[in-house]
Amino acid sequence: MTTGDAPRAASAMDREIHDIPATVAALLDRVGPEVAAAAEDFRAERPAWITIVARGSSDHAAVYARYLIETVLGIPTGLAAPSVLTAYGARLRWADGAVIAISQSGQSTDVVEVARAARDAGAVTLAITNDPASPLAGAVHRVVLCRAGREDAVPATKTYVTQLVAAAAFVATLADDGALLSQLRRVPEVASQTLIAAERWIADPEAGGAAVDAIASVGRAIIVSRGFNLATALEIGLKLKETARVFAEAYSAADVLHGPMVLADDAVPMLVVRPEGPVASSIDAASAAAGRRGTEPWVIGIGEGGADRPRPRDLSLATGLQESLTPIVGVLPGYLLAEASARRLGLDPDAPAGLQKVTKTR
Amino acid sequence: MTTGDAPRAASAMDREIHDIPATVAALLDRVGPEVAAAAEDFRAERPAWITIVARGSSDHAAVYARYLIETVLGIPTGLAAPSVLTAYGARLRWADGAVIAISQSGQSTDVVEVARAARDAGAVTLAITNDPASPLAGAVHRVVLCRAGREDAVPATKTYVTQLVAAAAFVATLADDGALLSQLRRVPEVASQTLIAAERWIADPEAGGAAVDAIASVGRAIIVSRGFNLATALEIGLKLKETARVFAEAYSAADVLHGPMVLADDAVPMLVVRPEGPVASSIDAASAAAGRRGTEPWVIGIGEGGADRPRPRDLSLATGLQESLTPIVGVLPGYLLAEASARRLGLDPDAPAGLQKVTKTR
Repeated sequence: MTTGDAPRAASAMDREIHDIPATVAALLDRVGPEVAAAAEDFRAERPAWITIVARGSSDHAAVYARYLIETVLGIPTGLAAPSVLTAYGARLRWADGAVIAISQSGQSTDVVEVARAARDAGAVTLAITNDPASPLAGAVHRVVLCRAGREDAVPATKTYVTQLVAAAAFVATLADDGALLSQLRRVPEVASQTLIAAERWIADPEAGGAAVDAIASVGRAIIVSRGFNLATALEIGLKLKETARVFAEAYSAADVLHGPMVLADDAVPMLVVRPEGPVASSIDAASAAAGRRGTEPWVIGIGEGGADRPRPRDLSLATGLQESLTPIVGVLPGYLLAEASARRLGLDPDAPAGLQKVTKTR
Repeated sequence: MTTGDAPRAASAMDREIHDIPATVAALLDRVGPEVAAAAEDFRAERPAWITIVARGSSDHAAVYARYLIETVLGIPTGLAAPSVLTAYGARLRWADGAVIAISQSGQSTDVVEVARAARDAGAVTLAITNDPASPLAGAVHRVVLCRAGREDAVPATKTYVTQLVAAAAFVATLADDGALLSQLRRVPEVASQTLIAAERWIADPEAGGAAVDAIASVGRAIIVSRGFNLATALEIGLKLKETARVFAEAYSAADVLHGPMVLADDAVPMLVVRPEGPVASSIDAASAAAGRRGTEPWVIGIGEGGADRPRPRDLSLATGLQESLTPIVGVLPGYLLAEASARRLGLDPDAPAGLQKVTKTR
């Protein structure tokens, strides 16, 4: 389980993170017909609302998709509580709505059951999955494949990112939003540049390297963002848990002031994902509140020009992407950080003790 | 800020927890006309879906209300992401739906804005709040008051419980569910008995007292439940954060196997809220997985007959309530545990450093 300080080959997780730009490029080349077919269904049925069902990392893709659907399409959207069906057997009035199921493996039993029940009750259904032969793919009207290939590391990375890309391609196509589609085609290049910048940041002992040190030694962390990148914070938090066994919790900048802020002090590292734009000021307010409690966050600034007031410890990503697409690349520094934290602790990031790649909760 | 080991008067939080049975009884005496009026609106408008908007503790009441609405009424329900409106300015197609806003103070700016936007766009709107003169009460069609009186401690306790009761009274009335309404009237008595049992449990150094010791000394905790009582786990987790500065995180038994389980080991106390019924088996699976990692959970068993296999360290609550109402009383042992953990650490549970009673995030 441990590798100690011995020299070692790159982890599968590290390789898969670095596969992301090429994987996304290949997905964008082929996703067109699938999202077009799904968009046609949604145009025909005009769902009054959308429910997204997912578990684990895919649930963070669902959080992202919810913001994207509501802001771009204006359709009220929420996340499912599968146990309403699978434990309590409730039958919902699905007929006026749509259900989007997101699962890398397509095996998650409760996700499949919700999708099937919704379809049976008259909802439009769409699955975003990496496996065309999975039970989930067989349970829905339309499938958009992630085409992420095989993922060997237990912590999902490239499958998560391709879920975001598939969701964005679907929403942009349904909205017929040419600007969004055009920006989406820039993502592979921006992802490559982001990985280079993030690796430099983590290699710098005064910058991201110090964040790795702090997180690994303290075993706790608070991750803050808001809006589209709340998904990014949640996903980084889960990866820090899974790979490095860190008590890492992600909060919306809005919620952190409602209670969790009491956890922030000079002993607890805080990582802030800060996109330029309308949520930046509330994220800054949370950072300032943490500062008054004696903790200085590390900031991953994302935007046209990166962080407004870059400090040596911060990572500034000038992506040129509109905020709604920044979660696709903004998660990458967090993935590298989690992988590095696990290695710093002598843990194998590919096979966290006690986790399985496919979880079949009912 | 600290009280050390000096003798001290009961905290306001402790007094307010003990006020809960009488407060709920008074609410039940007066809530009828308000929930009847709200139910009439919902019957007339027949919303296709419901969105609930809330922050902080009220967000946990929203999680509860969502399970109750979906299981009892069959109306698809989700939780709002207020920044879609307040930060990104998106206009949703609210006209076919309903919005329920939950806020103790009725001051939470983003909650008020979402409720107002939904009403303006044609949604049926209902507020559950403790303040009839609040901006929230003025922004919606119908108000159900919590009638919890003044709450002096910063951590919400009696206002949270009255939010659950108000939501349950509304859903039972809209469903015309006589059994549920009748059980609801038993809640004050069950709450009194629960407080007595929970105090004994915490006073026992082999039982709840050991949980307080472990949580206070480790400063971390994992709280697990599922279904209706996911809200209970989330609320206990937040209270442990707020009052005792414990890194307490709540998970659904379904989600905990997707990653957070790696955090469980013999050093991390786990608290399990286990209602009898259909979610018990998946909660037991999570407990067993934790056991294999070397941690033995403390279980708050809730049901007709309490825990199936009560151990000396567990609390067994024989409530006689159907599972859908158990969160109203199931949270009480957690409140006492959080208050006791804060006092054990010499912290003032009433005034956590850095928190305000009313948070006006936009």
